[in-house]
Amino acid sequence: MKQYLIVILWMLILSGGEGFAQTNPTSIIEDFKPSSVNQPQKLFPKVNSQRRVRASIAAPDAKKVQLDIGGIKYDMKKDENGVWMGESNPQDEGFHYYQLNIDGASVPDPGSLYFYGAGRWGSGIEIPSGDQDFFALKNVPHGLVSENIYFSKLTNSFRRCFVYTPNEYNENTKTRYPVLYLQHGSLEDETGWSSQGKANLILDNLIASKQAVPMIIVMDNGYAYKAPNNEAADNNKQQESVFEDVLITEVIPMIDAKFRTIPKRESRAIAGLSMGANQTMRIMMNHLDTFSYYGGFSGTANYPSSEVIDVSSFLDGKFKDGTALNKQIKLFWLGLGTKEPVPFPKSIGAFRKMLEQQRIKYEYYESPETAHEWLTWRRCLHQFVAKLFKSTI
Amino acid sequence: MKQYLIVILWMLILSGGEGFAQTNPTSIIEDFKPSSVNQPQKLFPKVNSQRRVRASIAAPDAKKVQLDIGGIKYDMKKDENGVWMGESNPQDEGFHYYQLNIDGASVPDPGSLYFYGAGRWGSGIEIPSGDQDFFALKNVPHGLVSENIYFSKLTNSFRRCFVYTPNEYNENTKTRYPVLYLQHGSLEDETGWSSQGKANLILDNLIASKQAVPMIIVMDNGYAYKAPNNEAADNNKQQESVFEDVLITEVIPMIDAKFRTIPKRESRAIAGLSMGANQTMRIMMNHLDTFSYYGGFSGTANYPSSEVIDVSSFLDGKFKDGTALNKQIKLFWLGLGTKEPVPFPKSIGAFRKMLEQQRIKYEYYESPETAHEWLTWRRCLHQFVAKLFKSTI
Repeated sequence: MKQYLIVILWMLILSGGEGFAQTNPTSIIEDFKPSSVNQPQKLFPKVNSQRRVRASIAAPDAKKVQLDIGGIKYDMKKDENGVWMGESNPQDEGFHYYQLNIDGASVPDPGSLYFYGAGRWGSGIEIPSGDQDFFALKNVPHGLVSENIYFSKLTNSFRRCFVYTPNEYNENTKTRYPVLYLQHGSLEDETGWSSQGKANLILDNLIASKQAVPMIIVMDNGYAYKAPNNEAADNNKQQESVFEDVLITEVIPMIDAKFRTIPKRESRAIAGLSMGANQTMRIMMNHLDTFSYYGGFSGTANYPSSEVIDVSSFLDGKFKDGTALNKQIKLFWLGLGTKEPVPFPKSIGAFRKMLEQQRIKYEYYESPETAHEWLTWRRCLHQFVAKLFKSTI
Repeated sequence: MKQYLIVILWMLILSGGEGFAQTNPTSIIEDFKPSSVNQPQKLFPKVNSQRRVRASIAAPDAKKVQLDIGGIKYDMKKDENGVWMGESNPQDEGFHYYQLNIDGASVPDPGSLYFYGAGRWGSGIEIPSGDQDFFALKNVPHGLVSENIYFSKLTNSFRRCFVYTPNEYNENTKTRYPVLYLQHGSLEDETGWSSQGKANLILDNLIASKQAVPMIIVMDNGYAYKAPNNEAADNNKQQESVFEDVLITEVIPMIDAKFRTIPKRESRAIAGLSMGANQTMRIMMNHLDTFSYYGGFSGTANYPSSEVIDVSSFLDGKFKDGTALNKQIKLFWLGLGTKEPVPFPKSIGAFRKMLEQQRIKYEYYESPETAHEWLTWRRCLHQFVAKLFKSTI
């Protein structure tokens, strides 16, 4: 009986697989509503209470149109007016990238707003979540999100960061504020956290309810490569990442000069998601004189390994002296979604084991029923920022 | 001979028409470069020295793919790998919205960045212009462009404006600055001026070369409708524009409270493009106690009429007393592209005639070889802002 149940469970899980891309129309509940991240006045895509996505597009001369979401392509059907429509299987709560496929061409859905992720500007959809109130746009005082263009000597290029300043920043013109440096993940950019990440709204709501200290958040681009010394420089040299140097020697001094920050380690935090968690952990451990709070959302610096960590060699032995780290670090915070794929659970598990063996204090949070996606990271940010800049050594 | 030349000229002009959508490959110069507003790492679309656009997309199963730009659909051709490619006729210099058409589906090009215009988020392309230096991203001090979310009681909705603050704003923390309120056109929104409009870069460059006074620019959304009193309110009532009230009673007080402005008429300008020129002229004339500079780019309040203006009734007689207006208004500035379509040249011409008859002082600028598009408006802004806040009554 137990084995029978396991088989049914597996079938349910697998029904998300390529072989089951056709949705049974009789099982669809007709309570679809336009996605909250649609373009103005656009009725499609829609989401229903089963968390299915329904897409629609006029393509009168197409042979095959598919909705491509969560790694699965769902065939859509054409009506007599040449308008195609189709539904996905139930999706996880939260934000997902997706696209349409028209006779073999992968294109953005003209109905949705566009987001940078998966290495392209493209469509996104929001599946309402039970806890969405914490990142909802509410009638509370709103901070500003400012686009800040700067020239980086290290990369010999123009770069950009977005800077969140809390609502009171422009009124209390003498107050100085702590700063969180917050990084995106792989194939994403500096726009992610204040768009699909809702970082500004999460902070607006937490600050309004006095659950978070008013703070500045700086969101830069984690891709930064050293400018080649000469034109004959080979491609490998061009790809040497200098993000750590850009952040430490260019971005932080610029932010401290341009904004009313508290320019000391006790008032600086650094965090990131996935690739950004990996990057910022290295930066944190190399610059404990610069930061005192760390947040790693769905990522650790041992990624992608799940092996036991050799603390004497890992990050040049930076985790060897747990006692010293416990004195220096005000908060070491890790988060993970319960549905994250390989290798994240085991890799982060191996990292936690190392922390525990070194008796390094840390906090750990699991986001229920979310994978390696933005609802995990919104929840992580929400948990993490509420703990920042409240303690003193 | 003269008639023969005219026929040839007409044929050249008409070759931009639907009937000539096929480009002669032998006439294409092969010096295409990726558009400056492509997505990171995307090679297509490209532009050549003839100002032709070449688009490309993989669509192996499609029957027909077209590049849709400037109101013309150009057939693309498929290669053996299922990749389509095609070129447009030469385009005007500057920024243009465009899209691809795949078996009847109009979709954004996955290669371009996306812009809000023509009532949708979609593809845009930049044709290099001879004078592009004035809006180029240069190594000069850059101001911030801040997203400012606010709740409007008049519309009972969340609204958003973008606020440009000059680079020195964050350093000279006691200085107060004049403000330009700058509006977009029909089917565009509050994102246009600081994206395809390049307003921030135009100001950064002008301020760096001391050709413009450092100023704040506020870019709001010109669509604002009164919240219905009850749910049974009919659709007509819902569509009553209250943008003037939103700007005067909600936006300006908010900006004056949140930013270090000089909150008086001598230090306030208002300008707009097309629909925004029409809107802001009405607002200017209704609120001469609030603004003293006006800029109308490709639009006037008599739009779309080209009839002689009856000054006693036009805008409730606001232009009747030219002598008084000349004392009150520091600058009344109008601009137009030389290639603008009906009804703009004649409508603005009729408006200028009225100004002249009333002996109302104004300045007039024509953007060479541009139509009702963003290069006209970038040039207008560049001309206009250099004249602001320099005189005193």
